[in-house]
Amino acid sequence: MNTIVNLSVDSQGLYDITHKVGEALSDNTLNEGLVTLFIRHTSASLLIQENADPAARGDLERWLNRLVPEEDPLYTHVEEGPDDMPAHIKAALTATSLSIPLLDGRLALGTWQGIFLWEHRHHPGTRQLVVNVLG
Amino acid sequence: MNTIVNLSVDSQGLYDITHKVGEALSDNTLNEGLVTLFIRHTSASLLIQENADPAARGDLERWLNRLVPEEDPLYTHVEEGPDDMPAHIKAALTATSLSIPLLDGRLALGTWQGIFLWEHRHHPGTRQLVVNVLG
Amino acid sequence: MNTIVNLSVDSQGLYDITHKVGEALSDNTLNEGLVTLFIRHTSASLLIQENADPAARGDLERWLNRLVPEEDPLYTHVEEGPDDMPAHIKAALTATSLSIPLLDGRLALGTWQGIFLWEHRHHPGTRQLVVNVLG
Repeated sequence: MNTIVNLSVDSQGLYDITHKVGEALSDNTLNEGLVTLFIRHTSASLLIQENADPAARGDLERWLNRLVPEEDPLYTHVEEGPDDMPAHIKAALTATSLSIPLLDGRLALGTWQGIFLWEHRHHPGTRQLVVNVLG
Repeated sequence: MNTIVNLSVDSQGLYDITHKVGEALSDNTLNEGLVTLFIRHTSASLLIQENADPAARGDLERWLNRLVPEEDPLYTHVEEGPDDMPAHIKAALTATSLSIPLLDGRLALGTWQGIFLWEHRHHPGTRQLVVNVLG
Repeated sequence: MNTIVNLSVDSQGLYDITHKVGEALSDNTLNEGLVTLFIRHTSASLLIQENADPAARGDLERWLNRLVPEEDPLYTHVEEGPDDMPAHIKAALTATSLSIPLLDGRLALGTWQGIFLWEHRHHPGTRQLVVNVLG
């Protein structure tokens, strides 16, 4: 029912993990059900977004970086580096869990929807995702 | 277990879909369970919000339009019209999936909670929602 | 399958409810499953965030209060007090429902993840949370 997926990420940005989630579901025999993704971190998050034009993802990243800049004098939690507090805020504004129905044995994503890990730190290392299937 | 609901929307704004979700559950016989809503688009999203005063919804829309305006020089993804990139950003800041428990055979919404489709484009057409029930 | 948890909150802020959710799961015998939290209000929300440094939570609160201030002339929904409309906006930008897998009978939270009620009003009273377990 649960699969843990380790995601290797080396810098800030949006990573398309749609195929990784599909791999975690490769043994699934359910036609209908619910897939829930849960990221076990507070400075990275999940996003379903447009999978076609990379410019849209670039704009999303630059927009959020402008809304939540580093070096904001408001921050007092600064011991873990200038990218840490912005990362927590960005994670709070986006999703830690996402649920996607299974239809005919496949994720019910729309034509233009991809699943993304949104990494908010500059030097993150490995991120853990739990893929839960219920039916 | 899954029902696809087609929602006809003609302009930007918040649409109360609480009764549409209720209709999709009209054959439900479960007393306790979980209902998950999933919208198959990247420029519209889901919101649970106050269902009483329309002024609250108007303020929400105008606030988000001010935070994420059209014609921002930051945008490079502009081929699909001036409302497209703001729509992706607004969708990223709100919900693509929502889960609501079933209590005594009914959605466990609070007294003032309604379920809304938040359409972020000006001329959207039909939007697809998947209503998943587990128990 | 569903447990209703009443949370007594007396002011705006982030409340760590991880142990309260754990108590609601104390009769659980499932090794693997899915726990969904749903808050039945439109001026409070749910957040999974860093549970270690209280300064991070303080920064989050002050950052969101700066983004969504009281006394914004944009607001027309003002009858319920100056903190009401900002509370609805803050709730719209964060989560009304969260789903967390069960792994080995325990919530699959990462090391630094706590579950928080984010109260957006100054004098809220009691908040209701529904804890749903599926497996």
